[in-house]
Amino acid sequence: MVRFELLHTSGRSRRGRLHTPHGTVQTPVFMPVGTAGAVKALRARDLLDLDAEMILGNTYHLFLRPGHELVRDLGGLHRFVSWPRAMLTDSGGFQVLSLSERRRISEEGVEFRSHLDGRALRFTPESVMETELALGADVVMALDECPPSLSDRAYHETSLARTTRWARRCRDAWRADSGSSLFGIVQGGLHEDLRRRSAEEICSLDLPGYALGGYAVGEEPRAMHDGVRFSAPLLPADLPRYLMGVGTLDDLVHAVDAGIDMFDCVLPTRCARNALLFLRTGRGRMNLRNASLARDERPPDEACGCHTCRNHSRAYLRHLFVAKEITGATLATLHNLHTYLRLMADMREAIEQDRWEAFRTAFFAARETPDAAGTAS
Amino acid sequence: MVRFELLHTSGRSRRGRLHTPHGTVQTPVFMPVGTAGAVKALRARDLLDLDAEMILGNTYHLFLRPGHELVRDLGGLHRFVSWPRAMLTDSGGFQVLSLSERRRISEEGVEFRSHLDGRALRFTPESVMETELALGADVVMALDECPPSLSDRAYHETSLARTTRWARRCRDAWRADSGSSLFGIVQGGLHEDLRRRSAEEICSLDLPGYALGGYAVGEEPRAMHDGVRFSAPLLPADLPRYLMGVGTLDDLVHAVDAGIDMFDCVLPTRCARNALLFLRTGRGRMNLRNASLARDERPPDEACGCHTCRNHSRAYLRHLFVAKEITGATLATLHNLHTYLRLMADMREAIEQDRWEAFRTAFFAARETPDAAGTAS
Repeated sequence: MVRFELLHTSGRSRRGRLHTPHGTVQTPVFMPVGTAGAVKALRARDLLDLDAEMILGNTYHLFLRPGHELVRDLGGLHRFVSWPRAMLTDSGGFQVLSLSERRRISEEGVEFRSHLDGRALRFTPESVMETELALGADVVMALDECPPSLSDRAYHETSLARTTRWARRCRDAWRADSGSSLFGIVQGGLHEDLRRRSAEEICSLDLPGYALGGYAVGEEPRAMHDGVRFSAPLLPADLPRYLMGVGTLDDLVHAVDAGIDMFDCVLPTRCARNALLFLRTGRGRMNLRNASLARDERPPDEACGCHTCRNHSRAYLRHLFVAKEITGATLATLHNLHTYLRLMADMREAIEQDRWEAFRTAFFAARETPDAAGTAS
Repeated sequence: MVRFELLHTSGRSRRGRLHTPHGTVQTPVFMPVGTAGAVKALRARDLLDLDAEMILGNTYHLFLRPGHELVRDLGGLHRFVSWPRAMLTDSGGFQVLSLSERRRISEEGVEFRSHLDGRALRFTPESVMETELALGADVVMALDECPPSLSDRAYHETSLARTTRWARRCRDAWRADSGSSLFGIVQGGLHEDLRRRSAEEICSLDLPGYALGGYAVGEEPRAMHDGVRFSAPLLPADLPRYLMGVGTLDDLVHAVDAGIDMFDCVLPTRCARNALLFLRTGRGRMNLRNASLARDERPPDEACGCHTCRNHSRAYLRHLFVAKEITGATLATLHNLHTYLRLMADMREAIEQDRWEAFRTAFFAARETPDAAGTAS
């Protein structure tokens, strides 16, 4: 079972520790996404070198390939992917709705067809619990429905009521002897009263942690930031608060400012494979395919101490992407994850030292200053 | 300039050192192929971890992208790709003939069209020297023509005469102040008298090293082994002997037995990306896509101490390839290169300790023993 320890607050921001069967995780934490048993383009060793303390696996992908029963029979997901530290699995509900075909939601669960081979499949709260417990992550998420933010209010209302009933069924199907801790997910879109209702219902289930779902699914960033700022305090102060699927570096600072403890997002890894680097300063991003970098010998981010920036030039990285070399994806992924994890470490330190407000102000000021290095966006 | 030091012989096999401007290379050496400025799926750091002492860059690929002038302006290939150790570039002649379109060979050189964008280009001995010296590897290869082994004798005769004239032009175009050492290439197919003639002509150019080209281009392995055994002693005993583009693990042992000092081949890296692992024992290879590996928790090669075999199971590697995860290519490449480099180290030790014949016998005996681990081929 996981246990959360709140160490310090600075403003609304929180510095804590999540104790898990696979080690203690310093929060606020960003979890790199290891979709199908690998953070794409990296080895487990690279994630240890980056000092990632917790990673995420996607239940939908692992259910399809290699299958949760195989993973269970081989000793669980940690062992299968050789990851010794903490791990969380989502419920697969989000991927079912975003990736699969011919999906149909009913009270019982979701029927869908695999995006890989079209076979007809079904997720129910009970089946998802079985799948996640077979994978055996330290934290497992309840099956929820995550409607687009801008769905109409009536749909959000219907959906969150069902998400509550599913969460209850997940709790009933979860097994206390499993070693996995179940987190519930609050929905409700951008409607404050629905978020409040969902939080009351979900948080009454007496779970060891809670998540905010349904953000960064179509709304403007500002609306998301305001929504998270409203919703975060609805979750119990003594338990970990996880904002699912978010976001940019700016989003992370906004959400920590609102009192969030845990994050995951494919953005740093997916963008890296598309030659987009995230920077801490200036305009915030660098497209490595940009022709202006062809003879630029500077490191991608001159202020960065990652493997990529210590060893390689913009010109070389641009060449790797132009030449379609796999190595480019690896080097860009290392940089982006380093930048994300380093930001989390800096935020943790600022909270500990009670200078969160100064940190936050300086962070956004640096973002708005044109980069002296003249990085291209 | 490079300098070769022959330390010891055992039978015909040779233990030496190649001193280069970027460090000393222990021979016999296998050079991983870094086609377009990267050994595919690896970082420079990985090659240092594997203790590769010399790598190869392909002049044809680097000429097309990013261009040798750009590399020269950014300080040369070592600096561009952040590789601090020794490096060799081929002449590009082989790739022009195997990859490009509408090629036409004349006394002057080779006209061809880029396989990337169809633009008309020309390599001459002089232009290739300019390109290679701009890249600035420690060893640069003369432009040669490498006909298929089984071309008719008359063609081999005409071709090797031209290769000699081109080698002379390369030597004349090479610059003594360049820091790069020029190696000549002996051709002649499987015809012993032509090999002898080519060796006499090429070795009269007074170069610091010589290569055998024209092997592993269509002939049976046995014919190649016999050819190399005949040709190796035609090269000066006090200079490094490089067998280009060879080969399998078995080929390396055969060629070291014939007195070869240097090798390069895309086989370990290319096969790795196609899910094929090379093993030291048994049937010698493992197809990681094989369904029989789906639940196999053993390391790919139980006798191997590489990063991949120490940390990951056959089941996990199979999953990565089935799920098309980039990480699979990286892990398989690390294993195959480790296996190649480890074999070279073992051969060096056997020669030093004057037990080459016993080593060679044991190596081939192990290859013929069905693998106790039951590895699938």
